[in-house]
Amino acid sequence: MLLFDLVNARKAHFSPNTWRVRMALAHKGIDFTVQDVRFVDIAGIRPQGDSIGHKLTIPTIQNDGMWVTDSWEIVHYLDDAFADTPRLINTGADESVLRFFQYWAQTTLHSGIFRNIVLDLYLGLDPADQPYFRDSREKILHDTLENAQAGRQDRMDAFRKSLQPMRLALANGPFICGNQPGYADYLAFGAFQWARVASPLQLLAHDDVVSTWLNRCLDLYDGMGRRESAAVDDLLDDSMR
Amino acid sequence: MLLFDLVNARKAHFSPNTWRVRMALAHKGIDFTVQDVRFVDIAGIRPQGDSIGHKLTIPTIQNDGMWVTDSWEIVHYLDDAFADTPRLINTGADESVLRFFQYWAQTTLHSGIFRNIVLDLYLGLDPADQPYFRDSREKILHDTLENAQAGRQDRMDAFRKSLQPMRLALANGPFICGNQPGYADYLAFGAFQWARVASPLQLLAHDDVVSTWLNRCLDLYDGMGRRESAAVDDLLDDSMR
Repeated sequence: MLLFDLVNARKAHFSPNTWRVRMALAHKGIDFTVQDVRFVDIAGIRPQGDSIGHKLTIPTIQNDGMWVTDSWEIVHYLDDAFADTPRLINTGADESVLRFFQYWAQTTLHSGIFRNIVLDLYLGLDPADQPYFRDSREKILHDTLENAQAGRQDRMDAFRKSLQPMRLALANGPFICGNQPGYADYLAFGAFQWARVASPLQLLAHDDVVSTWLNRCLDLYDGMGRRESAAVDDLLDDSMR
Repeated sequence: MLLFDLVNARKAHFSPNTWRVRMALAHKGIDFTVQDVRFVDIAGIRPQGDSIGHKLTIPTIQNDGMWVTDSWEIVHYLDDAFADTPRLINTGADESVLRFFQYWAQTTLHSGIFRNIVLDLYLGLDPADQPYFRDSREKILHDTLENAQAGRQDRMDAFRKSLQPMRLALANGPFICGNQPGYADYLAFGAFQWARVASPLQLLAHDDVVSTWLNRCLDLYDGMGRRESAAVDDLLDDSMR
């Protein structure tokens, strides 16, 4: 099992969607090796076979000669190919409601976080990746990375407020999925781990139950998430926040 | 099967949480009769037995001498007591993720709608219910009903934007739960039906996929939801919007 994953200049893995897959692999007890890539390397990697298009996207796994891309498709593949491991995505209405959770994470967590760490993400990248990142992200933002990230402290209250459904869920048990972590936890974890690895910004108040949950997720699977070191404050110049 | 439900002055059923239960009963093909109550009637109804506390809350069902209250508990009870009907709430992680959806509906749909229809809700009530409603809701709002509802057109964009995860889900199929409606659909439907029955406010743009979905839900079970008549504009004085 080979997992392709993006690294920044200090070789840290920041991709939120790959973190979903890493946690899914660990949940199932599947050993895997990682092939680190930068954005500039991706075009040079040509997946073999028909199961993936011609352009590599991250995350992608390669297993038994099979290439699978897109985190949702990968987890489906893992559920089917490793049928004796605990399933992460069930069928029917349960699958659809879990997919809704992914859309919530995408529109609330990813979108809420992106603008607040986008310059930090850029500053942390290998210099060879910076031109592509700036160009593509500024097109999405219709603004410079500097302007987009500016004023993030003023947006913090609204972001924290948007986590209210997670807080209500976490009042029922240690994980969003109840007593044990499940794929909804990994979907949300990916977003917070992205922020943690790429930016020194303190997204959560220390006494927030979401912060307690995040620490619990970082401890899972022998601290797999926590071993990926967090961005530290002195990497960045205060004037750039 | 007896369902207690609130009515307003024109005997329309507006309770969002009771609509969840009505749809769940119809989904399972369980016949039921309704006992209409006003807020002022509730104190006079004393449920028998130990399965409910001393205060009647809406929704409550009575079946086979058993009283069950709270929409989530009621649906659990229906899943267990009518085990040969399609289940609405599964177990483990699937139950927890569905419960997250309920929290999302509560914090995004209910909270987003409440302020925008609260004066209309009041104006539609039986006069005997109005003092209780005004008093209790103004305590929650820390404001008068009139002030709370004022300016709702300015809040419409933010509310519609908050529905984005529903739109992404509805790109995959006709219902949030996929090809067939499920409890997540009924949770969201309850919120929109509450607004439809209590207020002439047009919450959704006609070309919004959420509006198409809502019409689909209103048609379910021989148009059960649509038979509950919508609030009409001329019930209310324009100066009160």
